[in-house]
Amino acid sequence: MPRRTAADDGQPRLATIRDVAQHAGVSVATVSRILSGTYPSAPSTRAKVMRAVSELDYVANAHARGLAGVRPKSVAIVVNSVISPHYAHVAQGVQEEAAREGRLCIVGTTGGDPERELATIGLMRQEQAEAVIRVGNIVADDAYRERMASIARALARAGSQLVLCGRPPLGPDVPAIGVEYDNTAGAHAITSHLLSAGHRRILCLGRRSGYTTPDSRIAGYRAALAAHRVPHDPGLEVDGTMERGEGYRMMRERLDRGSGPRDFTAVFASNDLIAAGVRDVLRERGLRIPDDVSLVGFDDLPPAADIDLTTVHVPHEELGRIAVRLALRGETPGAAQRVLLGTHIVVRDSVRRLRGV
Amino acid sequence: MPRRTAADDGQPRLATIRDVAQHAGVSVATVSRILSGTYPSAPSTRAKVMRAVSELDYVANAHARGLAGVRPKSVAIVVNSVISPHYAHVAQGVQEEAAREGRLCIVGTTGGDPERELATIGLMRQEQAEAVIRVGNIVADDAYRERMASIARALARAGSQLVLCGRPPLGPDVPAIGVEYDNTAGAHAITSHLLSAGHRRILCLGRRSGYTTPDSRIAGYRAALAAHRVPHDPGLEVDGTMERGEGYRMMRERLDRGSGPRDFTAVFASNDLIAAGVRDVLRERGLRIPDDVSLVGFDDLPPAADIDLTTVHVPHEELGRIAVRLALRGETPGAAQRVLLGTHIVVRDSVRRLRGV
Repeated sequence: MPRRTAADDGQPRLATIRDVAQHAGVSVATVSRILSGTYPSAPSTRAKVMRAVSELDYVANAHARGLAGVRPKSVAIVVNSVISPHYAHVAQGVQEEAAREGRLCIVGTTGGDPERELATIGLMRQEQAEAVIRVGNIVADDAYRERMASIARALARAGSQLVLCGRPPLGPDVPAIGVEYDNTAGAHAITSHLLSAGHRRILCLGRRSGYTTPDSRIAGYRAALAAHRVPHDPGLEVDGTMERGEGYRMMRERLDRGSGPRDFTAVFASNDLIAAGVRDVLRERGLRIPDDVSLVGFDDLPPAADIDLTTVHVPHEELGRIAVRLALRGETPGAAQRVLLGTHIVVRDSVRRLRGV
Repeated sequence: MPRRTAADDGQPRLATIRDVAQHAGVSVATVSRILSGTYPSAPSTRAKVMRAVSELDYVANAHARGLAGVRPKSVAIVVNSVISPHYAHVAQGVQEEAAREGRLCIVGTTGGDPERELATIGLMRQEQAEAVIRVGNIVADDAYRERMASIARALARAGSQLVLCGRPPLGPDVPAIGVEYDNTAGAHAITSHLLSAGHRRILCLGRRSGYTTPDSRIAGYRAALAAHRVPHDPGLEVDGTMERGEGYRMMRERLDRGSGPRDFTAVFASNDLIAAGVRDVLRERGLRIPDDVSLVGFDDLPPAADIDLTTVHVPHEELGRIAVRLALRGETPGAAQRVLLGTHIVVRDSVRRLRGV
C-alpha cells in the first residue's frame, strides 16, 4: 500500500502535529492524546488521525522534525554491556536526566571491543549527541589516554562533550569532564568495618593490576590495614576479574588448597558479583555467612540486598544524572572538570563480630 | 589547539586506516594494534600514530567511513528502561548477535513515554538502523496496533525492519516480525508444579487486565487450575504491576487483612521481582519459604537464583539474538512472521510438598 510522504509531495517543510490535526480535522490535543495512546478515544477519530499520520509520513519524520517542530537533541552513553548492573544503573540515571532535560537517550554497546567503541562514538557524533558518556573500568595507560584525548577532541569539534564516568581524568588540556566516585574511601571504610569487628586475616578477592577500579579498591583495603597496624600479607590478595563466576572460582580454589584450618576469617570481595560467587561456594561447602566466614562486597547492586550482604553503596544513577547535567551546562569547552562522589557502607547481615572484640 | 581536518583540506575523501598508516610511516597492522589498545607498542610509534589520527581527523569520521572503509551498519533496540533485567538481557542478546554480524548496536530508552518512543524510533530510522527491535509488555488495543503499524511502515519505507519482541503480532499486512516466548505454557507448567505438590489455594499476584504479559501468564495459571479441576477463586487474584515494591505491597496487604489462618498455602508471583518483594514481607513476618508458604515466580532473572526461587526460565538473550537474525535475513519485507520460543521450569528450593500428597 503506497503512501504519499511529505517529500513525495515536493514539500520542503516536514509535517508537524498541527498538519496532522488539520489533515484529520481534529484538534492538536486530540492528535497528541491519540498518539500517546494513554487516553480512550473514539475508534472513528483514531482512524482519521492515524490515516493523517500515515499520509503525511509523520512517524517517519518524527525525529528530524521533533514533536514540537524542533528536532529533539540527544545524549549518548557508551557501555561495554547493558547486562552489567553498574552500567545499567548509570545508564538509567542518564536516561532520567536526559528525559528531564527534554533529550532523547541512546546507549551504545561495544562488547568491550575498542574498534566498536570508536565506530559507536563516531555514530553518536554524527547523530550530534550533545554529550557522549563513557563508563567503566579500564587500563589507564598512555595508549588509553591518547586514544580518549583524540576522541574528546573529535567530539568537541562537533560540539559534543565527552564525559568520563568512573574513570580517571585525562588532564587539563583535554576537553573532557570526569565524574568519579570514591573507590578508595569506600574500600577503606568497609575494610575498617571488618577490622573493627576483630578480623585480622581478610582475604581480598578480585585484584587486577593496572585496572583502575580494582586498583583503587585494593588501595583502600591496604590503607585500612595500615591504619589499623595490621600487617599486609600479599598472599591474601587473589587475582581475578569482577564477575560472579570468578568469585566462585577464586573461593573454590582457595578452599581446595587449604589442608589445615582456614587462614582467613573474612573476605573482602572487590564487588558484589564476586561476593555472590563466594557465597555460592560457601553454601556448597556448608559454611555459613557470617557464622563461619564474614563477607563484604562493593557496589550495593543486585544481588547485595537479596544475599544480606554488607557492602559499599555507590551512587550509580547519580553518576549518570550528574554526567548529563555537567555536559549540558555547556561551560567552557576545553576546561577539564572533575567531580568526585562519595560512597558509604550499607550494613546488612554478613559480618560477624569476633569474640573478645 | 586547532587541528586540520580532512574537510578543512578540501579533500572530499575521508581518511582511512591506510591514510593514517602512510601519514605515520607505519604499517596498517600497527595502526590497528595501537588503536585497539590491546597490544604493547613503543611510545614513539604510538605518538606518531596518534598524531596522524588527530591530523587526519580519523576518529571524527570513524563512523561515516567505517574502520574498514565501509560505514558500519547498526541494529537498534528500543526499551522502556535498561534497568529492567528482562530488557537488559534481551538487549544483551541483541548486542551479541549484532557484534557477530559486524553491526553496531544502539539501545534507545523511552522511560515509557510514547512521544519519546516515536522520536527515538525516528532517530533510529534516520540512523538507517537495519532493524529496530521493540520489547515489552503493552496494552495491545486498537490504538496500539495502529500506532505500531504506522511505525512499521515508516521503518519499512526507509529499509529498516521492525521486530516486536515479547509482544503479539500486528497482523499479516504489517511489515513487522514477531518473536515471542510462551508465557501461557510457562505459567501453566509452574502452577501445575504447585498443584502436583498438593497446593490448592494458590494466591496469584500481579494481575493487570489488558496488559499482554500478565494477561497471558494469568491465563496459564487459570488453565492449570482447570486442568487439575481446582475451582478458580477470583478472590485469590491480586492486581498490581510487575515490580518488587508492588510484590511487597500486595503481600503485606494480604497478610494484614487476614485475621484467621492464611487462606493460601502457595503464591504464584507473575514475575521474579514480585516474588522477591513477597519474600521480603514473609521474612519480616517471620514466615519461612517453603516451610510456611511456597513461592514461585516467572523469568529466571536476578534475583531468582539468589533467593532459591523455583521459577519459569525465559530465553531472554535468545529472544534478542533471534530478533536480530530474523531482521537481517532480509526476507520478503511485508511478510509477517512469528516465532514462539519455549519456556521451562527451573526447580530450586521454594516449594514445599504438602503432607498426604
